[in-house]
Formats: sequence, C-alpha cells, structure tokens
Amino acid sequence: MRDVYIVGVAQTPVTKGTSVRCRELGAGVIRAALEDAGLSGDRVAALYVGNMMSGILGHQQQLGALLADEASLDGIEAVTVEAACASGAAAARLAYLAVAGGMHDAVVVCGVERMTHVEHDTVTRALATAADWELEGARGETFLALNAKLMRAYMDAYGVRSEEFAPFSIAAHRNAMTNPNALFHKSIDTDAYLGSRLVADPLRLFDASPICDGAAAVVLAADPIAAEVISAQERPGVRIAGSAAATAALTVSRRDERLPMRAVERSTGLALQQAGITHRDVDMFELHDAYTIMTVLSLESAGFAAPGKAAKLAVDGGIGLDGELPIATFGGLKARGHPVGATGLYQLVEAYAQLAGLAGANQVAGAENALVQNIGGTGATVVTHALRREE
Amino acid sequence: MRDVYIVGVAQTPVTKGTSVRCRELGAGVIRAALEDAGLSGDRVAALYVGNMMSGILGHQQQLGALLADEASLDGIEAVTVEAACASGAAAARLAYLAVAGGMHDAVVVCGVERMTHVEHDTVTRALATAADWELEGARGETFLALNAKLMRAYMDAYGVRSEEFAPFSIAAHRNAMTNPNALFHKSIDTDAYLGSRLVADPLRLFDASPICDGAAAVVLAADPIAAEVISAQERPGVRIAGSAAATAALTVSRRDERLPMRAVERSTGLALQQAGITHRDVDMFELHDAYTIMTVLSLESAGFAAPGKAAKLAVDGGIGLDGELPIATFGGLKARGHPVGATGLYQLVEAYAQLAGLAGANQVAGAENALVQNIGGTGATVVTHALRREE
Repeated sequence: MRDVYIVGVAQTPVTKGTSVRCRELGAGVIRAALEDAGLSGDRVAALYVGNMMSGILGHQQQLGALLADEASLDGIEAVTVEAACASGAAAARLAYLAVAGGMHDAVVVCGVERMTHVEHDTVTRALATAADWELEGARGETFLALNAKLMRAYMDAYGVRSEEFAPFSIAAHRNAMTNPNALFHKSIDTDAYLGSRLVADPLRLFDASPICDGAAAVVLAADPIAAEVISAQERPGVRIAGSAAATAALTVSRRDERLPMRAVERSTGLALQQAGITHRDVDMFELHDAYTIMTVLSLESAGFAAPGKAAKLAVDGGIGLDGELPIATFGGLKARGHPVGATGLYQLVEAYAQLAGLAGANQVAGAENALVQNIGGTGATVVTHALRREE
Repeated sequence: MRDVYIVGVAQTPVTKGTSVRCRELGAGVIRAALEDAGLSGDRVAALYVGNMMSGILGHQQQLGALLADEASLDGIEAVTVEAACASGAAAARLAYLAVAGGMHDAVVVCGVERMTHVEHDTVTRALATAADWELEGARGETFLALNAKLMRAYMDAYGVRSEEFAPFSIAAHRNAMTNPNALFHKSIDTDAYLGSRLVADPLRLFDASPICDGAAAVVLAADPIAAEVISAQERPGVRIAGSAAATAALTVSRRDERLPMRAVERSTGLALQQAGITHRDVDMFELHDAYTIMTVLSLESAGFAAPGKAAKLAVDGGIGLDGELPIATFGGLKARGHPVGATGLYQLVEAYAQLAGLAGANQVAGAENALVQNIGGTGATVVTHALRREE
C-alpha cells in the first residue's frame, strides 16, 4: 500500500442564494485545487465528484463528465459518488483507495452542492431521500424530526438538559467568526441558543446546520508526484494515515440500539488502527455536527466520551481551539455551513489547513493528528479519515 | 497489480411494471451473486451500487447503506456510484480498482433501476438529467431527440439509409428470444422495423431501448478468494484483463466533432492495451445499444468499423452469435432491456456467462475475449472492460 498525501486544496465561501451555477462552483474548486498543488490537469488520472442532490434539485446527473469538461480535464475518467451527506468523504475515500493501491498516481476530488435556488420545502423533501423513504420519508419524517427524536431519546436516557447542547453550537459559531469561508459570522451565547426557535421540540434552530451552497476540492497523490509537490510548496506534507467506511441501517428503528452509532464506532476504530494511533493522539476532530445531537453521539460512539457524557467535554472550553479536543475548528457544519455533498471535502480542506499550519486565527497549535468524519443520514454511512502531519 | 476475477453473478428478469421494491430487487441480486460465488457476506469488504434515478423517481438516495442493510451485509462499507446510464459499469470499475490495487480482497457490485412505477413523462424528464440540463434538457431536448439528431447527422454524412439500421434491432430481438431474463421475446424483421412508429424522425420505435426495471450483480475477487471460488465452481475463471473509463462533453454541441465518440475511442484503446489484445482477438462485444445510432457509432469509434461503414458489419449476420463480431448476445439494451443503472451489470453478467460457457442457446462458440462497454449520455462517460476466459 502506498502513502497517500493531500497535495492541493480549495474551497469557495459557503453561501445562501448564490447565482453561481453548479458547474462553475465545481469546476472552480477543481481548477483551484490543482493550482494549489501546482499540477496541470494532465497530471491527475481521475476526477471523483461527491454530490447528493443535483439530480433532484438541478435536473443534472452525470456531474463527473460535466465537471471534467467544464474544468478542461479533457477525456479524464470521472464519476459521481453518493452516500447522502457523506458523499464528499465517500468520493475522497474511493480516490484514496485508487491511489493507495497504485492504480492512479493522482486524483482530484470535488464536492459540490447547490440547495438554495429552490423552495425550502423542496430542499426538505430532497434531504429526506437520505432517510429510508418507505419507512420514514413517505410518512412525513424530515431530518429535523428524526434528529429531534434522537435528541429526546438521548435526553431521557441520560437526564441531559437542553442547555447542555448549547456549548457545541456556541463553539462552532465562535470558530466561524474568523473563517472567511463560513456562512455565519455571528457569535452566539447560551441566552441566544435558548432563545432560538424550537423547530422540532426539543431541537432548536441553533441545534441545526443551515441549508446552503458550496464546493470544495482536494488533490490526492502518491510519490513521486506527492514528493515533487510538497517540496515545491514548502509546507509540511499531510498524509492520509487512515481511511475507513462503514454503514448501518438507514432508519434508526431497524437498529438494535437507538443511540450508539455503530458505523461511527466501526469506521473510527478502523481508521485509528490503520493510522497506528489511539484516541489520545488525536489533536482535533472534524466531526459531522449537522445537529448538536449528532455531535454528542459522534463524540460518544467515536470513543471520545462515555455514553451520556459528551456534554462534559464541552465544559471549560474542552472543545475550543485550545481545548483538549478541538472540534468544528472552522465553524463545522453548524456555522461554516453544510452544503451536503461538499461537506466532506470542506472538512478535509480544513483539517489539511490545520496540519499544514495554514489555519491562521483558527490554528490548533501543534496539531499533528486530525480525525475527520463525514456522516450520511443519522449514522447510516460513516466515512472517517485520519490525517497526519509529516515533517 | 493483482489479477481480478468475476467469481459470482446474478440477475433478475428485466420487466415492466414490477411490484418488487427497489430494495428487494437490489438485495436479491446481491444475495444471489454471493451465493453463486459460494461466499458468505462477511467475505466481501464492500458493496458498490450503480444507480442513476432512485433519488428522482423513488425519493431514495444512500442506496449503498440501504441495500447493505437489506442484504444483511451488516456494517459493510457501501456507496452509490453514478454516471448516468454508465452507472453500473462505473461502480464495477471502482470495485475493480479497489481489488486490483490490493485494498479489498472481494467486492460485490450491484446495479439496480426501477423506472416503470411512475408516469412516462416523469421518466423522460429524469433521463434528461443525463444530458446537459442547461444546454439541452431545459430546452426540451430528450434523449430520443438527441439521438435522432445524431442519427440524421450520420445518415447525411455517410449517405446511409434508414433500413440499414434495421439489422441491429433485428439481431438484438433474435438473441433475446432465448434469454429468459430479456424483456422482449418477440422476433422482428425489416418490415416490422420499417413499420414501427417514427418517434423522432429518423428514429423509429425499434431503434430505441425500452424503459424497464431490473437489477444485476457481480462479485469481484482476487486470489486467494478467487482461486478458492473458481476451483469450487468447476467453471473456467473469467478475469478482468482490462478496465478503463473516459469522458467527453455531455452535450454533443460542445465537442469538436459530432459523430466520433472520443471517450469510446479512448476507453476502448486503454482496455485493449491493458489486456494485451487487439481488435482481432475480441470474440464478442457487449456494446451500449441504447439506440441503433449508438450501436453504429460505438462500433466505429471502438475501431471495429471505419466511419460510415458499421452497417456493413451487420450484413450477412456478421453481428450474430456465429458472426465475425457477435454483439448484444442476450438481446442487448434494445431487447434484453435497459434498466439504466443496472445495464452495466447485466452486460458483465452476460459476458461472464459467455466466457464461462454457461450461455446455453445464446452461446458464442469458443469465446475467449469479450469486450463490454457501458455509456452514459450520448458518449459522455464510457466505461470499458475486457474480460478473458482463463483455463
């Protein structure tokens, strides 16, 4: 197995109501990631695109070939990868497999989603296709409702109060303040959190990530391309030291237990094992904070907190940039935003910036190992990468 | 690079109006392909699903995790791959890359599409998402219309008459007669072809493949699993000797030339080169006969006929089961049917049957090398596999 490095990254600001077309968003970050790597298009062997809803919301499938053409990657192998909200990281993992296995020397991975050009109800309905349509969506269940149920079950099981979820939302918004690419630049406090609308009791507006547009991309490569690029960049190399994916039933009602996310457990364990590190070595965790209950369950199922104890991590700034386990370091899904199919790429781009020492005001000092996790549905598809700074 | 074998196959009959749900269609062939290989679910490392329209027509995305759960592949890595009508072969190629590169020992690949549970216009509109929506679909272009334009351009460029397309349709229907899994079991002749409705002049009903439902699956594996399975099966091994993918602009109007399909040319060349064979060694060609004009352009761009000369191949039964270059050996997209995301898997299952000597009344005598090609759009994504019988 060959070592695989992230050698180029790019992102657009996350926005609402962009007039930029999907093809331009996608091609823009593909070009920019290649430029960041200093590679011309003919040096990459394939383009993998992470996207969930272009077919439903934009009448456009076959984004692989479309974006390849738009980005002037003439004739290149290209394909779209879909795993609901985990589409981005799933695309990156397939690129990782192709490069690590020696089948491709360099692959560019792009995540793109445009959601705000249609009515809110249309998006809600499109997002529900990530759930089990027959058992959930067709019965009127939305992701808000599903997460509200999980949150209620969690609160009941462990006697956790509503305000204990607030620190996750507050920390995400704080980190987004200094991220120019974040959707929100608005700091919030516990009063603001508790004052926010109950959108599906007990879930408040500030528990949920926003509907938005965005695109991000990475270039993955093995030596000799990686060595060539990294030496020219004069930055530390950032290696994918572990990569894993796992699944669970789409609908929580088909799982043996409601709260533990077994696919989080499994893919985290496999990624850490491959990287040869333990939880103690993880300097930061870009997790899938689509809802604060997802944050809490992720921290617990990934093994960073005992069941019912995740909220304790957030006390005293334990999840802040200088805390024990920084999370959502650029604002996370909550405040940077969650352009669904692009989210997994934003996470990789941000973790790369942290390890390469390019995170500016958001820098986690001395970060060496980053865990990055992207989730489809309420824990149905989970893709985890362990990134490592190489000197 | 490791040798990769097809070690298990399965398909459902292609139908119209099935009441079987997508999840049952998919899980059924996954289970059956594993059974054909004699492997339990825990022996495969991943499930890749080829599908184009489940999100649009069935409100269901994240088929990877859904089908993994439904097929009792508990916790397995799973993902959906989309490249319009080439989704099936694109999924198979990603599985090939993972196994050939040594990242996975065995992967099950499933293609599934359910199209006939909704109104005809809804399907037509969903299929148009494979084209360039802004430049074509939004202007009312359907795939029928796009193929009719290509057909007219071809007829004008080379002075080819309408009835010269008939032999391709007739041969496909003839081969489907003895395929129990084919949608159509109805033989046609030139009169029937010429008498069929002009759906978009010059394109007739019998030039086009049908809207239908279906699912098919293959299990890919390297040694030692492959050797274990093949020896237990007492069949010849069937190896993927070449695999390649290429793209071109979605819309024909953005290509330098209208008729040559450069992505067919490129992926065919790469697959043959990897397999170490020439056109002369190819014993059969499962091509993407979604429309007779696609058949003609495929034969020419793949290098089996000079520009304007493909129709000549069909004369005197040159494309029949005992001809120079058998195509659509079980009826092809035209008569076996074209359940879009599943088509690439049906093609692989059928080519496997030919090389393993299991093709019964449809057997191509002594077939050793099969070329299998799946196309998204009008030549935008092209995935080609060269299969070889190993004694």
